[in-house]
Amino acid sequence: MQFTLSSGKKLYYEMHGKGDPLVIFNGIMMSTASWKEFVGPLSERNQLILIDFLDQGQSDKMSGPYRHDLQIEAVRELLAEVTDKPVNLFGISYGGEIAVQYALRYPAAVKKLILFNTSAETSYWLEEVGNAWNKATHDPEAYYLTTIPFIYSPLFFTENREWMEKRKEILLPLFGDETFIQAMIRLTDSSVGYDVKDRLSELDMPTLIVGAQYDFVTPFYQQEYLNDHIKDSELIYVPKSGHAIMYEKPRLFVSILKGFVSEMKTTYVL
Amino acid sequence: MQFTLSSGKKLYYEMHGKGDPLVIFNGIMMSTASWKEFVGPLSERNQLILIDFLDQGQSDKMSGPYRHDLQIEAVRELLAEVTDKPVNLFGISYGGEIAVQYALRYPAAVKKLILFNTSAETSYWLEEVGNAWNKATHDPEAYYLTTIPFIYSPLFFTENREWMEKRKEILLPLFGDETFIQAMIRLTDSSVGYDVKDRLSELDMPTLIVGAQYDFVTPFYQQEYLNDHIKDSELIYVPKSGHAIMYEKPRLFVSILKGFVSEMKTTYVL
Amino acid sequence: MQFTLSSGKKLYYEMHGKGDPLVIFNGIMMSTASWKEFVGPLSERNQLILIDFLDQGQSDKMSGPYRHDLQIEAVRELLAEVTDKPVNLFGISYGGEIAVQYALRYPAAVKKLILFNTSAETSYWLEEVGNAWNKATHDPEAYYLTTIPFIYSPLFFTENREWMEKRKEILLPLFGDETFIQAMIRLTDSSVGYDVKDRLSELDMPTLIVGAQYDFVTPFYQQEYLNDHIKDSELIYVPKSGHAIMYEKPRLFVSILKGFVSEMKTTYVL
Amino acid sequence: MQFTLSSGKKLYYEMHGKGDPLVIFNGIMMSTASWKEFVGPLSERNQLILIDFLDQGQSDKMSGPYRHDLQIEAVRELLAEVTDKPVNLFGISYGGEIAVQYALRYPAAVKKLILFNTSAETSYWLEEVGNAWNKATHDPEAYYLTTIPFIYSPLFFTENREWMEKRKEILLPLFGDETFIQAMIRLTDSSVGYDVKDRLSELDMPTLIVGAQYDFVTPFYQQEYLNDHIKDSELIYVPKSGHAIMYEKPRLFVSILKGFVSEMKTTYVL
Repeated sequence: MQFTLSSGKKLYYEMHGKGDPLVIFNGIMMSTASWKEFVGPLSERNQLILIDFLDQGQSDKMSGPYRHDLQIEAVRELLAEVTDKPVNLFGISYGGEIAVQYALRYPAAVKKLILFNTSAETSYWLEEVGNAWNKATHDPEAYYLTTIPFIYSPLFFTENREWMEKRKEILLPLFGDETFIQAMIRLTDSSVGYDVKDRLSELDMPTLIVGAQYDFVTPFYQQEYLNDHIKDSELIYVPKSGHAIMYEKPRLFVSILKGFVSEMKTTYVL
Repeated sequence: MQFTLSSGKKLYYEMHGKGDPLVIFNGIMMSTASWKEFVGPLSERNQLILIDFLDQGQSDKMSGPYRHDLQIEAVRELLAEVTDKPVNLFGISYGGEIAVQYALRYPAAVKKLILFNTSAETSYWLEEVGNAWNKATHDPEAYYLTTIPFIYSPLFFTENREWMEKRKEILLPLFGDETFIQAMIRLTDSSVGYDVKDRLSELDMPTLIVGAQYDFVTPFYQQEYLNDHIKDSELIYVPKSGHAIMYEKPRLFVSILKGFVSEMKTTYVL
Repeated sequence: MQFTLSSGKKLYYEMHGKGDPLVIFNGIMMSTASWKEFVGPLSERNQLILIDFLDQGQSDKMSGPYRHDLQIEAVRELLAEVTDKPVNLFGISYGGEIAVQYALRYPAAVKKLILFNTSAETSYWLEEVGNAWNKATHDPEAYYLTTIPFIYSPLFFTENREWMEKRKEILLPLFGDETFIQAMIRLTDSSVGYDVKDRLSELDMPTLIVGAQYDFVTPFYQQEYLNDHIKDSELIYVPKSGHAIMYEKPRLFVSILKGFVSEMKTTYVL
Repeated sequence: MQFTLSSGKKLYYEMHGKGDPLVIFNGIMMSTASWKEFVGPLSERNQLILIDFLDQGQSDKMSGPYRHDLQIEAVRELLAEVTDKPVNLFGISYGGEIAVQYALRYPAAVKKLILFNTSAETSYWLEEVGNAWNKATHDPEAYYLTTIPFIYSPLFFTENREWMEKRKEILLPLFGDETFIQAMIRLTDSSVGYDVKDRLSELDMPTLIVGAQYDFVTPFYQQEYLNDHIKDSELIYVPKSGHAIMYEKPRLFVSILKGFVSEMKTTYVL
């Protein structure tokens, strides 16, 4: 569905199922379409709300540079319109960064926060990794090779060679699409300067933080940092997975996410 | 409730809620009473079946030595009586060991297997740890000091000093109860010789394996072994927790357990 | 050799080889005799100084309780006498705790600090572990079972069953010796109240910190704490080893220790 | 110095100091010049032999593709000429791969093997990472961004921003040098097909294997594999370091390497 922002730009979103809202903020290269296999299980007991950020999927493209702010305010306009309940907010990677900032800015609108493979800052290192991505945009295969192997664990990538090769075939045309690539550059650049390290202690909703052993984009010390500074948080470490947990361990991903969302009891008198 | 076994011995069990059965096999020092705070959340959407093993809680005491076999067959008799559905079988530590063997012997009766802090063998090391426990049975405080600090992570134990001290007060009289202590000795000794390392590949139900960073009883390499040898398994590592995850991280424990039990979708076409 | 302290008590020590002094502060249950196999390699290029703390090995026994202070001042008297050079100070476990405090009190006397399996405090948890040890002193086998399996990794203990059984035979008579056992109780109790967490930043000598994956006495977060707070420190993690690294990985232990001691270059302009 | 191979190609090498030979096999992007700061400490008690592989540093460039074989035979010719003693063979990354194969082919020529950040195979994943490097060769900055951030830990890279920026300035002209870049492509491609997983059990010299927590090129499971399959090996894990341990932790690197090389005692009767 289309939602028109006050700026005139349109956001694409989908709503599936009924119940307590569960909102998904995509990773940078993802879109609502990426969650196709997950819509069923994630909407069984929740109203699942999928959103394409600006410059993602079927949402409008931007034309110049912006910061995370733009995305935060865009999804805020949309969510304020489509639900009056505080939401379970799940974000992964780029989406996790937007989710943390959304929760800081609109705490009353967030019931629970679930952060997979997320960091509290765009470090100088991550900025240069982003620059590597941008530098590779001139050639679809260069873009594939610079981004994709980095996102999976070496174990998964190697053991699922055929699947990765098919994925390459699917992705190369997309990575050759100038409109997609310009959007990717803007999305990547929008993360520069992101830093909420000093503000995490303001968060007080129940928060789940999940990291992975072979996450080479947002390495585990970033999730440890989030867990050390967010008051009411839980931390899970997934052995042998890379940055894209939902693709490497889809069943485990869904189990962990649904488990935390569905759990109502927060105080245990032991 | 009481269930009379063919041997004449009585098993105590409880059933709470409705839905897909979720059976709990206790850790060695636990009983149905240990799950009081968890009954609510775990029976929300499942028929929760709590059981005291022989020599635990309100079940009958034995008088001489036995092996795991006795417990496996006892719970088998009970479960065959109270449900005709394959169950979600959750075991922790001692209960996890019984659960693995139950699933090997009665695979059709087990829908999913959830193993927290479980190993595939009683190693020589673990046998000597058990002997340390038995050697300390002459004195309630010795028994407390030999068993309890070992079961929690040093972090939790130190940060929750007051709670641990209260727990000590509660446990000392129990550890001075000769009937309880003799039962503990028999339970401990029943694990000697346990070894299913070579049979794990026979298991084919969806299995979740959870280990913890500071588990000093069933250290993480044991859960890695289970995960490496059980075909359809997922592995989670809980940072900063000890052996007794459900006490150190109760909300996370419930989330992870319920999430895996409730998840129906097993095949993802990505 | 015997050294008479100003208190009249005698310390036993040994000196082997020539060169830059390398002093060893023993773990709690150790003595100069424990290093027999290591004297050769460790005295090749260093003047190796082995010392029995009071209540250890061939040093005098005490009769009442004391704190770490007593040991620190005793070894200070000895070292001030036998060498006028700053020493390479290596301590493991109990010896590491004394070493940290010695370096804080006599920084000019310490050239380098090498801490294996050491913590910056006797946490409430470790205090209760010590109490478990003390409670088991009535029976040699209870003492063995309560202390020894805890000190080795489950892997090593299980794979070297025969060696452990021989060790048990050797240790049982010792653990039945009332003089030894009373000394062990005093040594154990002398650690209560130890806490240098807030003083580590004062240290500025080159420091090497080594921890182990299955160290169940001084778990790895303790070595991370030391490394995070000692300015000029390096950190090594030994996979698959327990608390007693020098017995589980003797060659690796010697390599790491000698390598750090012999290394003169501290500044690299890269 | 120059050494002329039977093929007519020239290898550049350096010899420093006296004693038991210690040979260094460089990482792919390195040369003898990379070890400038390490020559002093590493030649104190050893005859240090530095070598530029073909296509590295001051050795001759090749003109077409080749496999590891070429490098193995080239260094074999050189080493057979310059020393008649078995050598301590240290390799890092690419150099570690050549070292493993050299030790398999010429076991009598290798006294000890020291492998930092090495894997037993070029996995499909690593092959694609290599392809990413090759794809970025058209632009010095693209090459820098695709290779360098990947080689350091995010922690080091971020905390040493100024140093990294200077390094960038130094490297950009080099990465713009067509001769250097063509050599890098050939070196990278020479690793395709490398796989000694099944042959590791043939090695029987004392071997030290070192890995790092944030090594994103040869992740730690690769060093675990080496350690599990090489009979007489020791394993060290360096927390908080990336692939380039010698730059991130130079003093620790030298300590570990020298410690293992200098250690003569291999059998401990404990």
